[in-house]
Amino acid sequence: MIRINENYTKLQSTYLFTNIARKVAAFQEEQPDREIIKLGIGDVTRALPASVVDAFRSGVEEMSEDTSFRGYGPEQGYDFLRDAIAVNDFQSRGATIDAGEVFVSDGAKCDTGNFQELLSQDIAVAVPDPVYPVYVDTNVMAGRTKAWVNGRYEGLHYLESTEENGFVPSLPEEPVDLIYLCFPNNPTGATATKEQLKAWVDYARANRSLILFDAAYEAFIRDDSLPHSIYEIDGAREVAVEFRSYSKTAGFTGTRCAYTVVPRDCRVYDSSGKEHSLHEMWNRRQTTKFNGVSYPVQRAAAAVYTSEGRRETRALTDFYLENARLIRGAMERIGLVAVGGENSPYLWVKTGTDSWSFFDRLLTDAGVVCTPGSGFGRCGEGYIRFSAFNSRENVRTAMERVEAALA
Amino acid sequence: MIRINENYTKLQSTYLFTNIARKVAAFQEEQPDREIIKLGIGDVTRALPASVVDAFRSGVEEMSEDTSFRGYGPEQGYDFLRDAIAVNDFQSRGATIDAGEVFVSDGAKCDTGNFQELLSQDIAVAVPDPVYPVYVDTNVMAGRTKAWVNGRYEGLHYLESTEENGFVPSLPEEPVDLIYLCFPNNPTGATATKEQLKAWVDYARANRSLILFDAAYEAFIRDDSLPHSIYEIDGAREVAVEFRSYSKTAGFTGTRCAYTVVPRDCRVYDSSGKEHSLHEMWNRRQTTKFNGVSYPVQRAAAAVYTSEGRRETRALTDFYLENARLIRGAMERIGLVAVGGENSPYLWVKTGTDSWSFFDRLLTDAGVVCTPGSGFGRCGEGYIRFSAFNSRENVRTAMERVEAALA
Repeated sequence: MIRINENYTKLQSTYLFTNIARKVAAFQEEQPDREIIKLGIGDVTRALPASVVDAFRSGVEEMSEDTSFRGYGPEQGYDFLRDAIAVNDFQSRGATIDAGEVFVSDGAKCDTGNFQELLSQDIAVAVPDPVYPVYVDTNVMAGRTKAWVNGRYEGLHYLESTEENGFVPSLPEEPVDLIYLCFPNNPTGATATKEQLKAWVDYARANRSLILFDAAYEAFIRDDSLPHSIYEIDGAREVAVEFRSYSKTAGFTGTRCAYTVVPRDCRVYDSSGKEHSLHEMWNRRQTTKFNGVSYPVQRAAAAVYTSEGRRETRALTDFYLENARLIRGAMERIGLVAVGGENSPYLWVKTGTDSWSFFDRLLTDAGVVCTPGSGFGRCGEGYIRFSAFNSRENVRTAMERVEAALA
Repeated sequence: MIRINENYTKLQSTYLFTNIARKVAAFQEEQPDREIIKLGIGDVTRALPASVVDAFRSGVEEMSEDTSFRGYGPEQGYDFLRDAIAVNDFQSRGATIDAGEVFVSDGAKCDTGNFQELLSQDIAVAVPDPVYPVYVDTNVMAGRTKAWVNGRYEGLHYLESTEENGFVPSLPEEPVDLIYLCFPNNPTGATATKEQLKAWVDYARANRSLILFDAAYEAFIRDDSLPHSIYEIDGAREVAVEFRSYSKTAGFTGTRCAYTVVPRDCRVYDSSGKEHSLHEMWNRRQTTKFNGVSYPVQRAAAAVYTSEGRRETRALTDFYLENARLIRGAMERIGLVAVGGENSPYLWVKTGTDSWSFFDRLLTDAGVVCTPGSGFGRCGEGYIRFSAFNSRENVRTAMERVEAALA
C-alpha cells in the first residue's frame, strides 16, 4: 500500500490570503462602485527594465538558430551570470565570494524551501516570528515539528521580532542548530546592522550552527552603513548560506531568476562530528533534482549588472521606495508608528487594534487592502503590512483615502 | 551542532559522464586532428521552432510594458497552457484529464525528483534496470535505501529490462508500493503496448501501489497502436502520475518547461489506511516550494499546440527519428542487434563485449562517442546507448566511420 509522508497532515491551511480575497470579494459585491486599491501582496507592478528586455530578446533570438542554440546548460548557472554576481554583488562590497560558490536558480522560494533537505531531521530549528511561511512549512513537511498549539508548532524555536528589540530578534537562550534570518525583513521591513548580524555569526560559530540568510530585499537598502550581504561579516563564510532574488530587484517575479551562495568553507557535520562540505551537498542536490534556469532568462538577469541595467534597476527600486515614503508620511500624519519602508518595500504598522479589525476598517472606510500582521505569526498580532508595490497614482489615492478615513 | 542528512553519504558518485569526458579528452590530446562526433548525451541540437520563438518573443514584449507586464503567476501554470495540454495531449486521445490536474513546471527532472517527498519513507520502491539515475538517487537522498552492494542499493526492487522480456520489465514477484516506469524508455528506447501498461495498472490497483510514469519521449511515437499516455489505460487515473516535458518534443532543454499530471482521484493512504488526495498534496508542495514557470516560457510552450507549432515540432522529432533510422541501418549492416530508434530517439545496441570495451573501440577506431550501457545499471552491461540528437551530416559521417571500423 502506497503510504504518504504524514508530516503533510500537520500543515495548517494558511487562510491568510484566502480570507483577504473573500473579504475583498464580499465588499466589492456590496459596493460595486467603490474602486479598491491593493497594497497587500508583495508583487511588483512595473515592466522589466529596457536593458533586461533587450538581453532577454537576444537570448530568445539565439535560441532561434541552430548555430547559436543552447541545450542543457550547467545546473549551477552559466559562468557569464555567476561571474557577474560574484564581482558585483559580493566582491565589490569586500565580501570574498567567488563565482563557483554561486548557484543560479528559478527562485529564492524554491531554494529556501529545498535547502533544508540537506540537513538532519532531528536538528533544532529557529525561525523568526513574524515569518515568511515557507521557512516554517518546509520544515513541517520534513518532519521537524510536533503539534500545532496556540498558533505555533511545538518543536520549533520562535525568534520574536517585537517593538522592544527593534524587530531584530535576540540570540536564543537555548542552543539551536539551524537559524533562518531575513533582512531587510519580510514582513516587517526592519533592517539589521553589521553589529547585529555579527552577533548572529558569532553565535553560529560558537554553537556550530548554520544560518540561512534571506537577502531577497537587499536592493532596497539606501543606508550605506547597512550590510547587503551576510558575507560582509567576518567568519560568515563558515556558517551562512545566502539567498538572493531578481524578483524585487529587477521585476522578475514572473520571469523567474534567483541565486543561492554556498561558500566552500561552510561547515556541517555528521552525527559522529565529522565535517562535510555543504557546498558539495547542494551541488549534488541541484545536479540531481534541477536542470538550470532558462538560458534567455539568465541572459536577462546578467543585464542587471551592466551600467544601463544598474541605473534602471536603481530607478525601479527608487520608484517603489518613493511609494513607501508616501505611505510612511501618511502613517505619521495619522499618528501610527511604522517600521520599514526606508530600506525596504514593506511597512509594518502598529494598529492599536487587532490586525483583522484594522484590515476591515481600512477596507470598508478607505477601500484599501493591506495584509493583517497576525497572518505572519503570533508576534504579528496588532500590526498590518503595507507593500509599496503599486503605481504612484494608486499609492497617492490610497493614502489620501486612508488619511481621510482614519484622521 | 548542525548535522547533515546522512543519506547523502550513501550516494555513489556517478562517474559515467565524467569517465566519458576523461576518455574523450585523452583521445583528443593524443590525436588532435581526429574530429570526434558525440552521440552520447541526450541533448537536442536544433533551434526552437519558429512559432515557439514567435510566442516567446511576444511574451518578452508583454513583460516590457507596465500595462501588459505579468508578476507572480499561478504556481500550477497559466490556464492558457494547462487548457491546451489537457485538450491536446490527453482528451484528444480519449484520456479524461482536465486542465486542473496539470501542474506546469520547469522540468521533468525536478518533478520526478521532487515527487517522492510526498510519500512515506518506509515504502517498497521499484525502479527499472537500466534506469534514469534521478529515480534512484532521489530515493537514496530520502533514506529509502541501504548499502550499495555489487552495483545496486539494498532495499530497492530492481525491475530488470532484458532481451528476454523485450526490455519491458515483468511484474514484481513481491508487492511493491511505488513503481517508476518510463516509456518510450531512457536509455533503451523500448516502448510498451497498451496491454503491457494495462498489466502494470491492474497490478497497481490490486496492490494499492502508485506508478510514476515518465513519458518525456512520447512525441517520438509513430506507431499508432502504442499509448502516448498511461491515462489511455482504464483505471490509471486512480494509480498513476505522469511526467511530460517539452525538452525533447520542442527543443526546450535550455528553455525549461515541463508538466506533471496528478489526477484528482489518485489514491494514497496514511498508515491507518485512510485515503488522502495526492493531487492536493502535490498542490501544497508546489505552492509552498515553487513559484511557477517564467511567463514568456509558458507562452512559448503553448505555441507547441497551434497548428503551425504541431507541424514544426512534428518535423523536429521526424528529423531526429530519421537520424535514428540511419543509426539502426548501420547497426543492422554491421550485424548488431538494436532496440529503440523507431518510436524513440535512443538506440540500445547489444555489443557482444562489455560496454566500456565497445565504447573504447568506437572512440579509437571511429572517433564516435556513445554511452556505455553499464552506466545505467547492472542490466545495461553489454550494451551501449546511441542518441539520435545531432545534425544529419554528423550522424551520416559517424555511421560511415562506425561501419568502416566494425565491418
